[in-house]
Amino acid sequence: MTRVLIANRGEIAVRVIAACRRLGLSPVLAVSAADRDSLGARLADRALCIGPAPATASYLRPELLVEAALAAEAAVLHPGYGFCSEQPALAEMCAEHGIAFAGPRPETLREFGDKGSARAAAVRAGVPVAAGGEFTDVDQAHEIARGAGFPVLVKAVHGGGGRGIHLARDEDELARVVPVAASEAQAGFGNPALYVEQFFPRARHVEVQVFGDGEGGVVVLGERDCSVQRRHQKLLEECPAPGLSPATRELLRGSAERLAADVGYRGAGTVEFLVDTEAGTDPATVVFLEVNARIQVEHPVTEEAYGVDLVAAQLRLALGEPHGLPEKPPEPQGHVLECRINAEDPWQDFRPSPGRIGVAEFPRGPGIRVDTHVTADHLFPPHYDSLLAKLIVRAHDRTAAIEAMRGALRATQVTGVATTAQLHEHLLAHPDFQAGSVTTRWLDATWPPQQHRGGEGDTA
Amino acid sequence: MTRVLIANRGEIAVRVIAACRRLGLSPVLAVSAADRDSLGARLADRALCIGPAPATASYLRPELLVEAALAAEAAVLHPGYGFCSEQPALAEMCAEHGIAFAGPRPETLREFGDKGSARAAAVRAGVPVAAGGEFTDVDQAHEIARGAGFPVLVKAVHGGGGRGIHLARDEDELARVVPVAASEAQAGFGNPALYVEQFFPRARHVEVQVFGDGEGGVVVLGERDCSVQRRHQKLLEECPAPGLSPATRELLRGSAERLAADVGYRGAGTVEFLVDTEAGTDPATVVFLEVNARIQVEHPVTEEAYGVDLVAAQLRLALGEPHGLPEKPPEPQGHVLECRINAEDPWQDFRPSPGRIGVAEFPRGPGIRVDTHVTADHLFPPHYDSLLAKLIVRAHDRTAAIEAMRGALRATQVTGVATTAQLHEHLLAHPDFQAGSVTTRWLDATWPPQQHRGGEGDTA
Repeated sequence: MTRVLIANRGEIAVRVIAACRRLGLSPVLAVSAADRDSLGARLADRALCIGPAPATASYLRPELLVEAALAAEAAVLHPGYGFCSEQPALAEMCAEHGIAFAGPRPETLREFGDKGSARAAAVRAGVPVAAGGEFTDVDQAHEIARGAGFPVLVKAVHGGGGRGIHLARDEDELARVVPVAASEAQAGFGNPALYVEQFFPRARHVEVQVFGDGEGGVVVLGERDCSVQRRHQKLLEECPAPGLSPATRELLRGSAERLAADVGYRGAGTVEFLVDTEAGTDPATVVFLEVNARIQVEHPVTEEAYGVDLVAAQLRLALGEPHGLPEKPPEPQGHVLECRINAEDPWQDFRPSPGRIGVAEFPRGPGIRVDTHVTADHLFPPHYDSLLAKLIVRAHDRTAAIEAMRGALRATQVTGVATTAQLHEHLLAHPDFQAGSVTTRWLDATWPPQQHRGGEGDTA
Repeated sequence: MTRVLIANRGEIAVRVIAACRRLGLSPVLAVSAADRDSLGARLADRALCIGPAPATASYLRPELLVEAALAAEAAVLHPGYGFCSEQPALAEMCAEHGIAFAGPRPETLREFGDKGSARAAAVRAGVPVAAGGEFTDVDQAHEIARGAGFPVLVKAVHGGGGRGIHLARDEDELARVVPVAASEAQAGFGNPALYVEQFFPRARHVEVQVFGDGEGGVVVLGERDCSVQRRHQKLLEECPAPGLSPATRELLRGSAERLAADVGYRGAGTVEFLVDTEAGTDPATVVFLEVNARIQVEHPVTEEAYGVDLVAAQLRLALGEPHGLPEKPPEPQGHVLECRINAEDPWQDFRPSPGRIGVAEFPRGPGIRVDTHVTADHLFPPHYDSLLAKLIVRAHDRTAAIEAMRGALRATQVTGVATTAQLHEHLLAHPDFQAGSVTTRWLDATWPPQQHRGGEGDTA
């Protein structure tokens, strides 16, 4: 039986195990000492401990992951998301040891891992980009910012996942945030390089799922709207993205397809965009954000909308087989939503809430999918991200999907830790969300509800 | 909170509870003494014991079910399938006590509960029917059979669920089966009345899901193919039905819609047909079989194909709200399969295999839904039907759905009882099934595999 080494943890480890089962492959899980008793460890055919709990001593060390793959005699290594999933070093070490890496080629990871070269690739492919650029000193940052026009965002060149992004509304603020951003970038991503770019205050986050065969063939699987974000962290995603004109959809899809085809993209990837629909142009203003060169947390909304298995497609392609996705997928019928249930306290500024889970009851029923690694009595460790479960709901239209998700949230019961479930109930009931037109700044202006802000006033 | 009394058990009780949660209703479950510790009893807000284990002392007694609904102060009674779900007496008693019955009106149940009046209704609605009729003595049976042409089927007028059906290939066989069928009908349905009709040896079983608003408005939700049957018991269902011409689909849907509209059908119902596609006509030969005036076991394939919640629609309608289904549902994209995992031994002539479940692991992943009431360590009681779980899989086309279902079966692990899982693996791998053209007699000719038949020879 062909073995797959899963170099990740949490719900995505369980998800990759499911894809292995579907394909008749044998999943072997790399685990830290804190994850020895995890659901993934129980469901896999074998779990190999690669080191102690801190990710820097285990999941973030490519050499330990490859060692585990060799020990398991794995034909394929699946990196999941986060951790080393976009590390060219891991992809290279896999290649050196004859292990198929279920992701893009190292040079693709390198190109999209750097904001400057990613932007250059987008420009080459004729994809619209925001004004901005990398800078080496504060004066240069000011010069670029003036050219782009305030407000601007300052980002880590090697950053990702929405972390370490700062808003500067004017020159003074820019001067203040640059040193903070640089030290955060150094601490978070091991590199202080920064980037400044035009900020779109009323933009939606819309992303396109692509899947490349590595030889220029690209399947485009529609858009996801991920505008519901708390400080650039996605919380709620949907497919299709509501309220886009056909011309805007075509601009997004065509851009993503060209970019992926240009680089001979291999496997699953996401091309992220900002979309400003309020200027009234058709197509709307679209700018390239970045490419996530891996499977994403929110991939299930596309899977349920299109009836596909993206992770199985990654594994098949890594094994040298056809990926099995439809070449020209028909438009999805109906609508899919995903709510991220995080072990965080939305009433306490989203403070992480690890600990011993008591009850863990998740919803059942038509169109409901729950991706989770959490079961009753599970010890939710403090070392990693706070994603506890993803509720995914599909229904015949967006209104029905919202109603079904509200029911799914009511049927979710997790005790022992604080979660974001109640926040989602609030968001789904909100007229702005129901109208389908929220921007990336909406959540921060909406939560906590006004009456709970203790006189701070509206921060919108 | 509005309460719903669920007058059923097993997986459908769990399913109705999920619909209640979706709608914010409070589910109360009527349980027999054998089901006190069932998953449904745990998931419901309350469980009311209505009597001892034999269904004749609990689930089959309308007065006990209505008593429970009154004790629960339930606004709605959901009857599930089987048991009293099509008993006009239950619907009438509900009406007398001001409880909304989540099903058709009593007169509709009466009309479709009798093969003669059901057939008459079909004829009135211009729906094609098979030659045949009810008889009162053996001579009359012979006369009708000669008119219809041998082979014929002998059925209980008040039967259902595929039970008590006998094939007669000639006059001698007819003479032999009539007394057997009559005594079976008396024992099984409390009435010896029989019916004889033309038999279509190479027909497929195709059924149309309808949902009526009770005032002549009918939503048609496509066809299900349920041809994979063992002695008239469905084992594997799919949506859409493969390989039907547009004209055949239209004939089926139009027939079902007219029939349901004619009687002002209320709620979920299924119009069953036999379809003979091999005669080469277009549309194919279609004959009306019967109406199942309730939710069916296989309703999830339609739900997943169309992104709807039929049980929630039943509850909404019973509460006097709009049912919420799309008026003109678009054609489903992709394909949905359902495999019934029964606690039966397919190697021992499908002998029921109740007992203490050990492990109960079910598949996860994209497009996978599992409807079950079984968990690890569950005592599967001997008193009821053998349905243990339904695996439902949706994928972008039929080939991908078959592959995904094979993976789902591999990921299913149930110990302690024999199940039909391995049978399904065999069927899904079979070229006849993969070609999408099996008839209702296929399974009995295919299983057990030739090499295991101990020299009986091919019975096809």
